[in-house]
Amino acid sequence: MAYARGTGLAALGELTFHQRAEALKAAALALRERRQELYDLSARAGATRSDAQVDVDGGIGTALVYVSLARNGLPDHTLIAEDDPVPLGKGGTFAGRHVLTTPRGVSLQINAFNFPVWGMLEKLAPALLAGLPTIVKPATPTAYIAAHAVRVIADALPPGAVQLVSGSIPGLFDLLGGQDHIGFTGSAATAARLRADPAMTRRSARFNAEADSLNCSVLGPDAVPGQLEFDLFADALVTEMTVKAGQKCTAIRRAFVPAVLLDAVSEAVEARLARVVVGAPGAAGVTMGALAGLAQREDVRAAVARLASAGAIVYGDPHKVEVVGADGERGAFLSPLLLRVDDAARPEPHEVEAFGPVSTLMPYHGVADLLDLVARGEGSLAGSVVSRDGDFVREVVLGAAAHHGRILVLDRDSAGESTGHGTPMPQLVHGGPGRAGGGEEEGGLRAVHAHLRRTAVQGGPAVLDAITAG
Amino acid sequence: MAYARGTGLAALGELTFHQRAEALKAAALALRERRQELYDLSARAGATRSDAQVDVDGGIGTALVYVSLARNGLPDHTLIAEDDPVPLGKGGTFAGRHVLTTPRGVSLQINAFNFPVWGMLEKLAPALLAGLPTIVKPATPTAYIAAHAVRVIADALPPGAVQLVSGSIPGLFDLLGGQDHIGFTGSAATAARLRADPAMTRRSARFNAEADSLNCSVLGPDAVPGQLEFDLFADALVTEMTVKAGQKCTAIRRAFVPAVLLDAVSEAVEARLARVVVGAPGAAGVTMGALAGLAQREDVRAAVARLASAGAIVYGDPHKVEVVGADGERGAFLSPLLLRVDDAARPEPHEVEAFGPVSTLMPYHGVADLLDLVARGEGSLAGSVVSRDGDFVREVVLGAAAHHGRILVLDRDSAGESTGHGTPMPQLVHGGPGRAGGGEEEGGLRAVHAHLRRTAVQGGPAVLDAITAG
Repeated sequence: MAYARGTGLAALGELTFHQRAEALKAAALALRERRQELYDLSARAGATRSDAQVDVDGGIGTALVYVSLARNGLPDHTLIAEDDPVPLGKGGTFAGRHVLTTPRGVSLQINAFNFPVWGMLEKLAPALLAGLPTIVKPATPTAYIAAHAVRVIADALPPGAVQLVSGSIPGLFDLLGGQDHIGFTGSAATAARLRADPAMTRRSARFNAEADSLNCSVLGPDAVPGQLEFDLFADALVTEMTVKAGQKCTAIRRAFVPAVLLDAVSEAVEARLARVVVGAPGAAGVTMGALAGLAQREDVRAAVARLASAGAIVYGDPHKVEVVGADGERGAFLSPLLLRVDDAARPEPHEVEAFGPVSTLMPYHGVADLLDLVARGEGSLAGSVVSRDGDFVREVVLGAAAHHGRILVLDRDSAGESTGHGTPMPQLVHGGPGRAGGGEEEGGLRAVHAHLRRTAVQGGPAVLDAITAG
Repeated sequence: MAYARGTGLAALGELTFHQRAEALKAAALALRERRQELYDLSARAGATRSDAQVDVDGGIGTALVYVSLARNGLPDHTLIAEDDPVPLGKGGTFAGRHVLTTPRGVSLQINAFNFPVWGMLEKLAPALLAGLPTIVKPATPTAYIAAHAVRVIADALPPGAVQLVSGSIPGLFDLLGGQDHIGFTGSAATAARLRADPAMTRRSARFNAEADSLNCSVLGPDAVPGQLEFDLFADALVTEMTVKAGQKCTAIRRAFVPAVLLDAVSEAVEARLARVVVGAPGAAGVTMGALAGLAQREDVRAAVARLASAGAIVYGDPHKVEVVGADGERGAFLSPLLLRVDDAARPEPHEVEAFGPVSTLMPYHGVADLLDLVARGEGSLAGSVVSRDGDFVREVVLGAAAHHGRILVLDRDSAGESTGHGTPMPQLVHGGPGRAGGGEEEGGLRAVHAHLRRTAVQGGPAVLDAITAG
């Protein structure tokens, strides 16, 4: 911490936003150069090549988007004059202006196990641009992947700009205060425990939480079988269930469909799931890998049992799965599992998250009922509406917006370029209210601004000009 | 709470931002119409007429600034399309856009005793504009003033838009969750206790804290006796000590002056303090009223004793004061008290806040020493630099910015229109890092945005246009 606050802060503080962007670019390119090493390490965590690419290439791409945003949207300077001066007197001799400057602190980044590289880079990029030295605290199950990535980028960055610390660190938060920023991704329970620490409650350290949530996808009443949107909905649901074996905080846990379409949707999704090949990353034909570990599999099985008590499992067996190229018991493999809960008023599907290849189909009866069901998730990272009915889409998006950090509208017109339900984009806010943690990550330059300190400076116009001049 | 979430939210939700601005204007004008009643009530709390005007007229003026900002800067609609669509594909068929919508929650506003009207209105204005129903929780010592003001404005606002609840309310936070916003002004200890509540830690209710802080004013080395800035510094210090009897969270608690000027500054301030007339609000010649109550006076005396242990009281007696038109013992009167601490490295002046007419003079030796002393406040609402030396001003402002929500530069060129060290402006951020609570209030339309929920909406351009259309 002392190395970050001393050497790291000083080294970054000497760089302008553009120079920090150059450093970030060098780090991202160094990582790209050695990405094969990260793919190989990721396979040990059960990730298929395409899973690893989501993490590794997705992370590198995210960092490079921030490089571009910083070059185009931030000054070649260490300070941002945020908006125009506000006149505060009729004579024009006194005004106010907001500036954003680098706090005298560090960025502690606590990441989840599912995206050891992307999760690290999407936090590090805005912190680095803001001039804050980073301390990466990876999740233990995949810490070896994050540690390797940090070793690679540390060489490309100024001294003290990035460090890594693993495992349980008693007393870490005692070192944090009002100039520091904590970026957290993980469980709601851990977020709650950390947020109650005196570092936040007494010393006002900034804490941004991004927690798993019970994200939903909604099928519109227009999207009957035969319409392209019907297939888009089923395809997206299966994608979200199987990429990273469903270990994504944005994955679709609740799938709401018009009551009259419930049977048809269930059949369509089951048919697609039957084509999923579970097995060892890299083995021939495998389309879904393993969970991150045996403990994770036990957690998912327990959650599925609770979900099933409200309805039924309509596809898959939580205790049996055909596995290609590996031992299905020794490896943390799990069948994709589709549940169906006809009584959507049951609490379980809105409260219990199975952090694996698991989703629950539920019927809705009209928009008012649908919006009520959506709200029962108590805040989500991502939602999607699959429909081409403009009025329905508008009503659902506006009615559900306050419960979501991001809402995707999917239809045949945008499907070709759509980035999908589960993919946070660096240009757009990632986070969500309530259960999802109440935070905001990414969001373009907002994420850099969120690491800076806003100060209103008041004085004569010449004084303000001199202070904000490059 | 149910009335706010039901009736209040529905009534405000039907209004556009412009219509809410109209309602806010009606409320402010209703209050202006009856301000004499509020002055009379304020006198009971020890406030002189000019103290009461700071609170009452200041609050009304703040509300009217928000009316104007909303009319000019917000759409005549219920939703804000925050920025331009972000293209997310080369073919132009898919994009993202941030929208701000009203949460499905309430705004609980917990105010401090010193500004029962202003403190209420500066929180209510942005919440109302955002469409959130307000529940005002005034501080008990001056709750009768806030209650009267709320009665007046409630008649001018939609049903359920504003309510008031007083005293200790066990269980109140159990009713709050991720869609709700809490605006808090008060002590750091209470802020810490509330912030650890599960409403925040588990359910991610938004909590904005504005706590007292050890604000500083800095005299530049150029501002020697005979320079106008020398007098501006002494005048401002005395103003901040005596307005509201120093019961302002922005008041100057730490006055840093070049070591060689310490004696001269002390003499100049003492001479001005000798002209202060303490007494009953309204009595002839009175320029400083009483503290809000006897308990407050005991708190201030205890704090002054701790401060004095690090140095000396150079003006005033904490136990004796000449009072005009009242009994100095039965009323909560206190002499203005100037302290001097020659060893500025002592912890007391940077940690102990005497929330009354009290300030401490300290010497500094060069800019590096000064910035170190400033930082020992661990985060402040407001600071000021009184100097006409451009290089000094720039170095101090940029070096101190991360520790402040607002920094005022005062010199002869802007003094005529300067709004002063202690006065938050609705156009500028009010709040500060660390000890000051880490929050941001006011700040123009930022304050409205902070009450809204940001959602990234993704889809085809026609879909995005339809969702964001007025």
